[in-house]
Amino acid sequence: MTNTIRSVQGTEDVLPQQWGWWRRLCGEARRLFEAYGYGQVRTPILEHSPLFVKGTGSTTDIVQKQMYTIQGESDDEDAITLRPEGTPPTIRTYLENQFHKKITFQKFYYIGPMFRKERPQKGRLRQFHQAGVEAVGGASPLLDVETVILARDIYRDVGLENFEIKLNSIGCEECRTEFRQEVYELLDKEREKLCEDCQDRMDRNVFRVLDCKNEQCQEIAERLPTITDYLCEDCSSHHDEVKAALSEEAVDYVEAPHLVRGLDYYTKTVYEITHSSLGARDTICGGGRYDGLVELLGGPSLPCVGFAMGLEASLLAMEAELGDPPSTGVEPVVYVVSFEAAARPESFRLIQRLREAGIPAEMDFEERSASAQMRMADNMNATFCFLMGERELQSGDVLIKHMETGDQWNAPRENAVKEIKKFLEDTE
Amino acid sequence: MTNTIRSVQGTEDVLPQQWGWWRRLCGEARRLFEAYGYGQVRTPILEHSPLFVKGTGSTTDIVQKQMYTIQGESDDEDAITLRPEGTPPTIRTYLENQFHKKITFQKFYYIGPMFRKERPQKGRLRQFHQAGVEAVGGASPLLDVETVILARDIYRDVGLENFEIKLNSIGCEECRTEFRQEVYELLDKEREKLCEDCQDRMDRNVFRVLDCKNEQCQEIAERLPTITDYLCEDCSSHHDEVKAALSEEAVDYVEAPHLVRGLDYYTKTVYEITHSSLGARDTICGGGRYDGLVELLGGPSLPCVGFAMGLEASLLAMEAELGDPPSTGVEPVVYVVSFEAAARPESFRLIQRLREAGIPAEMDFEERSASAQMRMADNMNATFCFLMGERELQSGDVLIKHMETGDQWNAPRENAVKEIKKFLEDTE
Repeated sequence: MTNTIRSVQGTEDVLPQQWGWWRRLCGEARRLFEAYGYGQVRTPILEHSPLFVKGTGSTTDIVQKQMYTIQGESDDEDAITLRPEGTPPTIRTYLENQFHKKITFQKFYYIGPMFRKERPQKGRLRQFHQAGVEAVGGASPLLDVETVILARDIYRDVGLENFEIKLNSIGCEECRTEFRQEVYELLDKEREKLCEDCQDRMDRNVFRVLDCKNEQCQEIAERLPTITDYLCEDCSSHHDEVKAALSEEAVDYVEAPHLVRGLDYYTKTVYEITHSSLGARDTICGGGRYDGLVELLGGPSLPCVGFAMGLEASLLAMEAELGDPPSTGVEPVVYVVSFEAAARPESFRLIQRLREAGIPAEMDFEERSASAQMRMADNMNATFCFLMGERELQSGDVLIKHMETGDQWNAPRENAVKEIKKFLEDTE
Repeated sequence: MTNTIRSVQGTEDVLPQQWGWWRRLCGEARRLFEAYGYGQVRTPILEHSPLFVKGTGSTTDIVQKQMYTIQGESDDEDAITLRPEGTPPTIRTYLENQFHKKITFQKFYYIGPMFRKERPQKGRLRQFHQAGVEAVGGASPLLDVETVILARDIYRDVGLENFEIKLNSIGCEECRTEFRQEVYELLDKEREKLCEDCQDRMDRNVFRVLDCKNEQCQEIAERLPTITDYLCEDCSSHHDEVKAALSEEAVDYVEAPHLVRGLDYYTKTVYEITHSSLGARDTICGGGRYDGLVELLGGPSLPCVGFAMGLEASLLAMEAELGDPPSTGVEPVVYVVSFEAAARPESFRLIQRLREAGIPAEMDFEERSASAQMRMADNMNATFCFLMGERELQSGDVLIKHMETGDQWNAPRENAVKEIKKFLEDTE
């Protein structure tokens, strides 16, 4: 067994028993996405690399260090990247399908895997999953608020309470120019106190430093001026309207003037939802407005807003706050035990009749002994056993045994399904 | 717009309106998989390459030509491959999670994307999707039959009729040795008539020639002896029991003595389901027994059987036989039109109250004119419009308009949700 092949570091399997919180979260997300008018899109895992270099942004850690990229086969063929996030692909499909020439305003959602070559470390997955929305074509601050409420409603409906919504505005290019200059000069004075990554990052994009999770960098960032003091009139009134509508809708949020997001495309509203159980990497959802991205990707100038929920992080929060997930294993109502090899085809007929009647049924396919089959019926938590031996083969009956009470009785095989159905109806 | 980035060749987007048959097929598949006792697993997209070189088989076209592989970062790190099929990963997770040391017999299903670098051509996708099952640990021929019936039931339950189940046995290594030698000698005599690929393939594995879709190769293959004449006693009686149980369960199938599958791991039972509408590549599901794979991947010797349904091919069959899919766009019941900018926050409150009551509602987030909003309500097929202008702002009312009849009336805003609820209940 030393030569078995193991899974790739940073990837996870989900087994039949482990779907409890996944199904709850994704089910609620899907239901609420559609209730709020967002329609499902599925874009491919593979995209041409320039989509992310341009879209996600060449100064981001994602593009700089974390992309899984497969080189093109010839020089004039673009390299291909496993998508690290869902926003640029959604905009790509919007443009490729010419929505801007039909009905400009569109609301999309997606659920699926994303890939980032994170440093291997507990809890940092290289294949992780996101559920997100993108509303394309709407400039109204109420749209920002709709997405915040949607994310909140999903978490609230799955039962979470200990999450916090953090809100900020990072303005537009115009507001940022002066702010960036100022921050750069201040950071430059403390350059040697920053972590190594940040010393490098600050020359690419000072916003990356504000984002750093390193304690000392965060301390320095805390002392910097905040972008909200630099907002232009348009960005400032947008921000005020967002806050007013959030309050009107009784959404609990905190202002987080130091919050920026690790992506280049955000403008105006940015937000994060964090969960108190998660320690340093406590973000379970991140979102905001990105009014420049569509044009950057070759389309017309169109305002957009969206968020992405990290599913694995959200599931950790659910486990911490709600406890173990409900089990999702498959349990048969009836397990058919064959005492003779000759009885097996007849046992198979029985489980098929039960399944056709909507009753989960199982039998032994390992050709094991009757006692091993009885143990399996027990292991699988079957409500009933059907016992099929030589006597039953000849009589046309089946011996039915209730596993919990031990009661057992004979029934003609043609009536066996009906008896179980009746029992299930009586105990409902 | 010339510089927009397009999707990768051989990949497809699925848009909000296009989910009709997807949801029907995957919904039925999921329901029946679980009714038959198969539990869901999700393995990662990324696996170490040797899993497929060993598992899928080094002589297959998949491994020879079609794998998307990312080289490891250092020499002692394995290359990583985007999974081209679901069976080896399922066995890998079975072994990695030590199921063979707990309860040996396990039934799994999966639904997800697979990746093969097919020659670009209409209908050949490089990212495609499969739904499949793997039953690990059962040698009984009844288990083969269970999987065939399961696949048939899924297709039948989605409404398909024009499919055909093709059955064969390709025996075990013992039966195949003599057969292989004989076929090789016969093919060698006609080597120059085979397609270029097959001239190469036959030295690697003669079974690949039997599989070739080239017409002339197929003609030659038709004249060859068939593997069923070479089956050993065990394989032969297994095959007979499969056929007997299929007949007993009234499963329509045809014997296809030339059928082999394009994977190295199959033993004994192999089958395909084809659909009459699909032309040369008409397989919508392929499966069979693979009793050697678990051991090949470093585990104990365990018999297995499973199938994979090609979802895109199955959807084409559904479209051909059942017509256009039901639409899955999201349609609001109420569209709220704001006649004044000042009315927008109040309109937003209204759609939120409607949504909280489970009524899909929408408004304009583009800040367009009232007439453009009315057109949008029409476009989106809303049942009602709510009209919010200065008068309504002051009166506390909302003007409700039924879009089809044109009826309109005033209602206090606090009662608006109730009125719509009542209307929906009355018309149910």
